[in-house]
Amino acid sequence: MTMKPETPLLDRIRSPQDMKRLSDAELRRLADELRAETIAAVSETGGHLGAGLGVVELTVALHAIFDTPRDKLIWDVSHQAYPHKILTGRRDRMKTLRQEGGLSGFTKRSESPYDPFGAAHSSTSISAALGFAVARDLGGTTPEGVGDAIAVIGDGAMSAGMAFEAMNNAGALGKRLIVILNDNEMSIAPPVGAFSSYLSRLYAGAPFQEFKAAAKGAVSLLPGPFQEGAKRAKELLKSVAVGGTLFEELGFSYVGPLDGHDMEQLLPVLRTVKARATGPMLIHVITKKGKGFAPAERARDGGHATGKFDPATGEQKKAASNAPSYTNVFGETLVKLAESDSRICAVTAAMPDGTGLKLFDGRFPSRCFDVGIAEQHAVTFAAGLAAGGMRPFCAIYSTFLQRGYDQVVHDVAIQRLPVRFAIDRAGLVGADGATHAGSFDTAFLANLPGFVVMAAADEAELKHMVATAAAHDDGPIAFRYPRGEGVGVPLPEDGTPLEIGKGRMIQEGKGVAILSFGTRLAEVEKACEALGARGITPSVADARFAKPLDRDLILKLAAGHDALITIEEGAVGGFGSHVAQLLADEGVFDHGLKFRSMVLPDVFIDQASPEAMYRVAKLGAEDIEAKVLDVLGVTRLAERKA
Amino acid sequence: MTMKPETPLLDRIRSPQDMKRLSDAELRRLADELRAETIAAVSETGGHLGAGLGVVELTVALHAIFDTPRDKLIWDVSHQAYPHKILTGRRDRMKTLRQEGGLSGFTKRSESPYDPFGAAHSSTSISAALGFAVARDLGGTTPEGVGDAIAVIGDGAMSAGMAFEAMNNAGALGKRLIVILNDNEMSIAPPVGAFSSYLSRLYAGAPFQEFKAAAKGAVSLLPGPFQEGAKRAKELLKSVAVGGTLFEELGFSYVGPLDGHDMEQLLPVLRTVKARATGPMLIHVITKKGKGFAPAERARDGGHATGKFDPATGEQKKAASNAPSYTNVFGETLVKLAESDSRICAVTAAMPDGTGLKLFDGRFPSRCFDVGIAEQHAVTFAAGLAAGGMRPFCAIYSTFLQRGYDQVVHDVAIQRLPVRFAIDRAGLVGADGATHAGSFDTAFLANLPGFVVMAAADEAELKHMVATAAAHDDGPIAFRYPRGEGVGVPLPEDGTPLEIGKGRMIQEGKGVAILSFGTRLAEVEKACEALGARGITPSVADARFAKPLDRDLILKLAAGHDALITIEEGAVGGFGSHVAQLLADEGVFDHGLKFRSMVLPDVFIDQASPEAMYRVAKLGAEDIEAKVLDVLGVTRLAERKA
Repeated sequence: MTMKPETPLLDRIRSPQDMKRLSDAELRRLADELRAETIAAVSETGGHLGAGLGVVELTVALHAIFDTPRDKLIWDVSHQAYPHKILTGRRDRMKTLRQEGGLSGFTKRSESPYDPFGAAHSSTSISAALGFAVARDLGGTTPEGVGDAIAVIGDGAMSAGMAFEAMNNAGALGKRLIVILNDNEMSIAPPVGAFSSYLSRLYAGAPFQEFKAAAKGAVSLLPGPFQEGAKRAKELLKSVAVGGTLFEELGFSYVGPLDGHDMEQLLPVLRTVKARATGPMLIHVITKKGKGFAPAERARDGGHATGKFDPATGEQKKAASNAPSYTNVFGETLVKLAESDSRICAVTAAMPDGTGLKLFDGRFPSRCFDVGIAEQHAVTFAAGLAAGGMRPFCAIYSTFLQRGYDQVVHDVAIQRLPVRFAIDRAGLVGADGATHAGSFDTAFLANLPGFVVMAAADEAELKHMVATAAAHDDGPIAFRYPRGEGVGVPLPEDGTPLEIGKGRMIQEGKGVAILSFGTRLAEVEKACEALGARGITPSVADARFAKPLDRDLILKLAAGHDALITIEEGAVGGFGSHVAQLLADEGVFDHGLKFRSMVLPDVFIDQASPEAMYRVAKLGAEDIEAKVLDVLGVTRLAERKA
Repeated sequence: MTMKPETPLLDRIRSPQDMKRLSDAELRRLADELRAETIAAVSETGGHLGAGLGVVELTVALHAIFDTPRDKLIWDVSHQAYPHKILTGRRDRMKTLRQEGGLSGFTKRSESPYDPFGAAHSSTSISAALGFAVARDLGGTTPEGVGDAIAVIGDGAMSAGMAFEAMNNAGALGKRLIVILNDNEMSIAPPVGAFSSYLSRLYAGAPFQEFKAAAKGAVSLLPGPFQEGAKRAKELLKSVAVGGTLFEELGFSYVGPLDGHDMEQLLPVLRTVKARATGPMLIHVITKKGKGFAPAERARDGGHATGKFDPATGEQKKAASNAPSYTNVFGETLVKLAESDSRICAVTAAMPDGTGLKLFDGRFPSRCFDVGIAEQHAVTFAAGLAAGGMRPFCAIYSTFLQRGYDQVVHDVAIQRLPVRFAIDRAGLVGADGATHAGSFDTAFLANLPGFVVMAAADEAELKHMVATAAAHDDGPIAFRYPRGEGVGVPLPEDGTPLEIGKGRMIQEGKGVAILSFGTRLAEVEKACEALGARGITPSVADARFAKPLDRDLILKLAAGHDALITIEEGAVGGFGSHVAQLLADEGVFDHGLKFRSMVLPDVFIDQASPEAMYRVAKLGAEDIEAKVLDVLGVTRLAERKA
């Protein structure tokens, strides 16, 4: 069905080196072909579409003018790097995007020398680029050499504290460094925050139709008429001074705003910058997320991420869903609770859709706070809300909560403030791969004094845990749950607060006890079915709490069985480690217990389906079955299969 | 010896309520008395002096005008809160400052209702204050009520990303909120970064002798002449517009700069702000760290922190040190290595003195980078340096590394970049208390794939570990070491790289093996002496590595002894947990092993001497001895003593 676009110029590009011979007119046509190719590729694989379409011209211009991979082109977040991948020798592998064994959906150092610094979380690019720039000036060597350092960062990402820290440092160091602010007035969600309004005013004050460039920084860069386009660049750059921008206050020369889809602006300005920049430069480029693909341009999120789709209509080929997603169960339960409790409020760091808080925001806009890409602030802001008598839910993906870890420790845990952490995307997440895996939250939260840490075994349990968190005013509490759909259990009308620190027995058996923390419970149950066919009936319990542990339950399981196996979707240091610590303290190991703790393995697992990732992790039903057989000394599953 | 200052006015102040009756002239005199009292108090206890002296007038003015504790006064970092403590009912306990059972050196919610939000790490105050402001507007209730929210934040703290995130959010929300920028041109170290230069220009452009206030925000606040000082305020505020400041671009009304030691400026401006502020206000106050105490004013760091001293001369009463500090050993070793390796460079987040990098900076200024209070950026900047072919050492205290945790995971570990983390202040730190304890780093680093995690048992080991880190180019490596002096072992001329993942036997014994990770080794040896008198000779090993574990050593110890005890200066989830995981995986528990893991207890331990804190933690020699006796079933130490 898919029409393959005509791409005569693109077909000749094996690497950016091949672009050096193209005229400006050819580069413009190349950009058009690259856009068509990007749409066609993503229509087959799904993935992040809108961001890439917004930077097609910028991608072509940068590779045409700079000497990648010697010059270090660093894409912030890097979900906009699909066109970059197509131009840098990975075109024929685009159909493997975000799939097991295929290309990553992000830049990745191990994938290509054209990816000098991988990303997936936001706002790291300026720091990394500054590192390269300083390394270059100190004589650092890499196989490709070290030339210019160029960070391409979106307006949403720029508003994160980390980007400000990097600008602050770069502006003071004064090294040659190029930051391209890709201003599409969009994070994943529409932008929030004062900085975003500032950029809008900057743009309104100097619309790029007239291209009024800031004079101070830019004019000093102007070359004599030394190459094609320089005259045009001179016109563009000298016109009118906007006055000291915020960036200039931070020590950057500012150029812009430019129309990021107009190669007649991009090419001469980038050539001029390359020829003449001495210190840190900020080039402000206005782009449109989803540019050139009508369905994406129309979408509220600019076609941020998509499943496979029909490239003609944009219609997505979605599998019908069976059970509600954990995300939605969280969002709906919170709305319901908030209807009768005006103290409940919610905080998200630029992810109202991803966290399910969009629902809450629709119903209680005055109690829902999207603070932007700002996890550090999000956590302490929530702590302040709690100290002020509110019941804040801080909804942050497991992997992004790492951004606010010190605030969790210092502002929440030490002060024992009742902030509720809704930790979505806990465990392995699939196509987004290792950078988005929620592997470490149990370990980094469960050793904080006074914290309550829960994991939901299914969507009904999640509902109870939201209610438990709402009712818990005695210190911080967190509940984790995975990406994707629930297991399809019946959902109660309302959640019921759980007794803190109490697990539940699922099945009484003998010989072996399996103590599950989180959604591996379904796999445990599958394993038990297979084991039942062999006449083995393990006891099964759902721990619910990694902290406080259900001491009585654990000691009872240990005392009543020869073997105790814990399982969780997290790295060592978490639930299993706390159980081991308890068993050791209690002297349970002194006289022998076949204790095993099934955790994520000590590797970063690349993208695949979540199921495939859990197979790699050896945390699936067959692995549980094998572990049980192993501790019982019975023939192993692997052998039976062979 | 100490002269008690005359404080007739201060003697009448039991709480800020008593200040409401004072005239402006009396408030000025009260400030003078408060300064004298602060100097006298700190001379007896030691502590943070300079910052408090810089805000004496501000403290008096704020408490006189605002209705604390209903109005929430939040001191950023809060080492400047000693005068605040004296005014808020804690004057008679100042002599217990930073001591066991005494007042905290920081604000602390559990200490006083006048401390609505504790701190100790930097840059959290605006986030917390915004939380209170929003809670107030949403009807949040607390025992003291919720009125105004006032953050007092230094210029150094303001340059951290987190503060920017909070400003960005606050500016957009538009709630009434008061941020006082206490600009003393000083972090702990002299300031760095472009933002700091910006503030200097702001001040240079509008020196407060003339008090040219920004017009836009401030004039709209002007009241009619409704109270004493309003006319003066009007004069101050209306004079000259500075133009759009960076703060105004972020949605704040800007007032300043004011002379923070001139009550004739502070009082009327604060009264006006209190009466008329509607949205977020930034009040820019220029102060002098160490103001009014000549030895502090003269010091490079403004008398940041001090031991006990003679209040007349400022001469410190320091105990003679016996062994070199770990900090110095790190700094000196790094300098030596860098002499023959031009790839070695160093990154600190505003702590050149505290981390020992001052030495390095003196010798290799072009290779030493103080990035400001910006741990997120520091880590990723170091990752960029590593990707650019350098050998960066990122020196950050354990507790502050929590600020850069996501960057450690996402930019360093996932990319396997050889960043060297020098983790000072690992373990319990003494007078700075729970907020500065380095309790969690082993747990949050050792489960990251590809990381090498070491702990030094003594200062000679630290020297070897610095050399090990320098030589290790295959992925990230961290070494942790405590605050304070080494144990006095002979120091080798040069460090020798250790074999990765290999521990060392200290003593061959029998029955019980003790496996130590870090500087508890000295306590283990003390315990063994006492045990020797009872005829018990444990085997003792120094693990050196929490990751990779020395599998052979651990299994040998487990196989050769009835009991294995691990000990570390960290929370559960770290070294002991990794050992337990190995032992479980290997089936060592199946047939019995008396395994115990001695870790920090599940409480935040308040300030005391480090020795006293370790007693509370039950990680001292006597506790180790007791643990050994306990696993051997011998009479317990406690009983013997009774």
